[in-house]
Amino acid sequence: METRDPREDRAEIPLAVASLLFLAAYALLVLSRGLPDLWHGLALAVIAAVWLLFALDYAARWRRSGQGPRFVRTHWLDTLVLLLPLLRPLRIVRFYEAVVRRRGRPRFPLQARVMFYAGVSVLLIGFAGALAVYQQERGAPGATIRTFGDSVWWTCATLATVGYGDVSPVTPGGRTVAVVLMACGLALLGAVTGSFASWLMAVFATAEERGRPPGS
Amino acid sequence: METRDPREDRAEIPLAVASLLFLAAYALLVLSRGLPDLWHGLALAVIAAVWLLFALDYAARWRRSGQGPRFVRTHWLDTLVLLLPLLRPLRIVRFYEAVVRRRGRPRFPLQARVMFYAGVSVLLIGFAGALAVYQQERGAPGATIRTFGDSVWWTCATLATVGYGDVSPVTPGGRTVAVVLMACGLALLGAVTGSFASWLMAVFATAEERGRPPGS
Amino acid sequence: METRDPREDRAEIPLAVASLLFLAAYALLVLSRGLPDLWHGLALAVIAAVWLLFALDYAARWRRSGQGPRFVRTHWLDTLVLLLPLLRPLRIVRFYEAVVRRRGRPRFPLQARVMFYAGVSVLLIGFAGALAVYQQERGAPGATIRTFGDSVWWTCATLATVGYGDVSPVTPGGRTVAVVLMACGLALLGAVTGSFASWLMAVFATAEERGRPPGS
Amino acid sequence: METRDPREDRAEIPLAVASLLFLAAYALLVLSRGLPDLWHGLALAVIAAVWLLFALDYAARWRRSGQGPRFVRTHWLDTLVLLLPLLRPLRIVRFYEAVVRRRGRPRFPLQARVMFYAGVSVLLIGFAGALAVYQQERGAPGATIRTFGDSVWWTCATLATVGYGDVSPVTPGGRTVAVVLMACGLALLGAVTGSFASWLMAVFATAEERGRPPGS
Repeated sequence: METRDPREDRAEIPLAVASLLFLAAYALLVLSRGLPDLWHGLALAVIAAVWLLFALDYAARWRRSGQGPRFVRTHWLDTLVLLLPLLRPLRIVRFYEAVVRRRGRPRFPLQARVMFYAGVSVLLIGFAGALAVYQQERGAPGATIRTFGDSVWWTCATLATVGYGDVSPVTPGGRTVAVVLMACGLALLGAVTGSFASWLMAVFATAEERGRPPGS
Repeated sequence: METRDPREDRAEIPLAVASLLFLAAYALLVLSRGLPDLWHGLALAVIAAVWLLFALDYAARWRRSGQGPRFVRTHWLDTLVLLLPLLRPLRIVRFYEAVVRRRGRPRFPLQARVMFYAGVSVLLIGFAGALAVYQQERGAPGATIRTFGDSVWWTCATLATVGYGDVSPVTPGGRTVAVVLMACGLALLGAVTGSFASWLMAVFATAEERGRPPGS
Repeated sequence: METRDPREDRAEIPLAVASLLFLAAYALLVLSRGLPDLWHGLALAVIAAVWLLFALDYAARWRRSGQGPRFVRTHWLDTLVLLLPLLRPLRIVRFYEAVVRRRGRPRFPLQARVMFYAGVSVLLIGFAGALAVYQQERGAPGATIRTFGDSVWWTCATLATVGYGDVSPVTPGGRTVAVVLMACGLALLGAVTGSFASWLMAVFATAEERGRPPGS
Repeated sequence: METRDPREDRAEIPLAVASLLFLAAYALLVLSRGLPDLWHGLALAVIAAVWLLFALDYAARWRRSGQGPRFVRTHWLDTLVLLLPLLRPLRIVRFYEAVVRRRGRPRFPLQARVMFYAGVSVLLIGFAGALAVYQQERGAPGATIRTFGDSVWWTCATLATVGYGDVSPVTPGGRTVAVVLMACGLALLGAVTGSFASWLMAVFATAEERGRPPGS
């Protein structure tokens, strides 16, 4: 919407890499039960460092915007992502804009781009959600999600809106994560499915156009 | 469709506020089990007052329309909402028209508006549905929805069409509410998802347009 | 697609009424367990009469088409509906064309029409499906669908794609009916949801157009 | 996208027939438990022969492309299909292009074509998925999918995103197949539903256009 500082675009791709690091460290933290304490400490250090980096980026953009407290509201998605860095893949539009500015207009059709970016966002949010639900549920009395494999299976069944119910979260924490996962994941997945359908129609129309005998 | 009286637009926003009051009083009524009778009485009074207000508004519009008994049929959504005020968020189009007339053309793109209004309607109808199902189910023999938290969790799983089935209504009353919730909620949520996908495509197309090197 | 005989349009609405009679008789047949044999016989007689009527209509159209055996394939939907009259609501397009020819262009917007006709088709097919599943499942060992109410609840949860799984068919016959119901109902319901979303977008756009201050 | 060798189009339809043979042989392999060893050996031979054929076709196209190792990445869908021939229906676009070139522009409207091809792809992938899940699950301790009928029922409930959960895979292998089935099947089924809704809107619009009294 607004004119943007090129410095923000330059920062976007390193920040995306940092958020992948954040996700990897969080995965290590959740899954590192049997590992020595060293790994645990390392994961915590990386998480703290990346979070600090995000806070600095947020503060720098706030100062540059010159908006005062209104910035928190007008950049509500950035504020949300600062508080819950696992939701960072939701900044898909901003990331895409940075990529486009770096590389110029892409070769693939628009629908394929939407599919790709929304699909990768769903994968990252799904992985983060599976980790967060597993962290909440493991050890809870009566839990049906007992291994990380169960949690991944539950996430896939949820994002596909199939929802078998053979495993499902039972703790308030796990259910809260689940609702956030549904809200974010289903909208993005709807975009994937919708752009796939639209792309298929376009490809079929092109094929018919080219398949027509010449001169008709 | 028809030309509308500006008085109706002026009344729309106060009536929406009154319907929020109605929802709050209904929530108090359903959840006030342990509270003193005073709160219970207050909630009932508010519900009665708001219902009366809605009836007066309906009567005034009926009289102004000069349509006779045909009004009940041509304004079937208003009639339905008069009988079941919890469905008032379904008057989303009328509310939106009133807001637009008050504020002029909005700044945000059309898809973002549809997402916002349909999303808020889903939230309100979902909250009302969770309350109504909880009221029907609690204390029923064999019920799996035993706390209001269960009911909210069931509502989220239903509106996302995931439907784990770990909790689900068992009484005829609860199931009737569930079917109404599905019918209203899923159509509105489909509008949210659809306009999100459409918005994402538009934003990506704009980003590509701007990212193109000049003169190409 | 092809030019159509006006006699077919004239026959379409009476045949739709006959198919409602068929559905009512089938409902009586399935639900009439405690009723005297007279009702049972009456229902069977109506079903036979309507089926004969459909067969005569099919034969008359076949003869008029002059297509020979190819007619069975080119009119595959008509052939399917002749064999399974409960699927008659699938002839929605043909019925709509007959209504439009009788009444001229309708007042409501196109999306509202699609919503209405597809919605009514879903209701009729859902009711027929609930009856057919109940007929297959009742009395089966280990069945979870034990009353007609269960069957209606199951149908609603299936068509909304929620699928709690608290009740679900267990017999091969019931599961076959369920698959047909999913295939027909979900496509039609997708059309309802899609046209609702499209209608909401159009209404919002119109409201913004009208809400704009004059001259801007 | 790229200019294509006519030899590839000529090969596409025989290869599709070969992939049907592959599916039939795989079905025989999975379901042939009680049959004599001869059938088992025959099925294995057909599978090996078709796989070899696919590998030769892939190699020939690689050589003709002159791309070197980049071919594996630019033709990632072909590479995936080479590794998992059961996913061959995903080459729907390539198959459609070959059909269009052979037959010229089709008579049916575009949406009907998309519906038909995507629908057939879903059926084939669903059948392959039901076989693969059954192969993984049968004999597993605690499995709920015990017969091939259960597996088909589970596949239908999954592709419709209903997901009752009365039967669902429990082994890691079965769940992996299920996730692949969801990812492929739901996108294709979304295309079927989406093009059906779009087709219904177009047909209704045409009917209204034709139903209008002349001169209005």
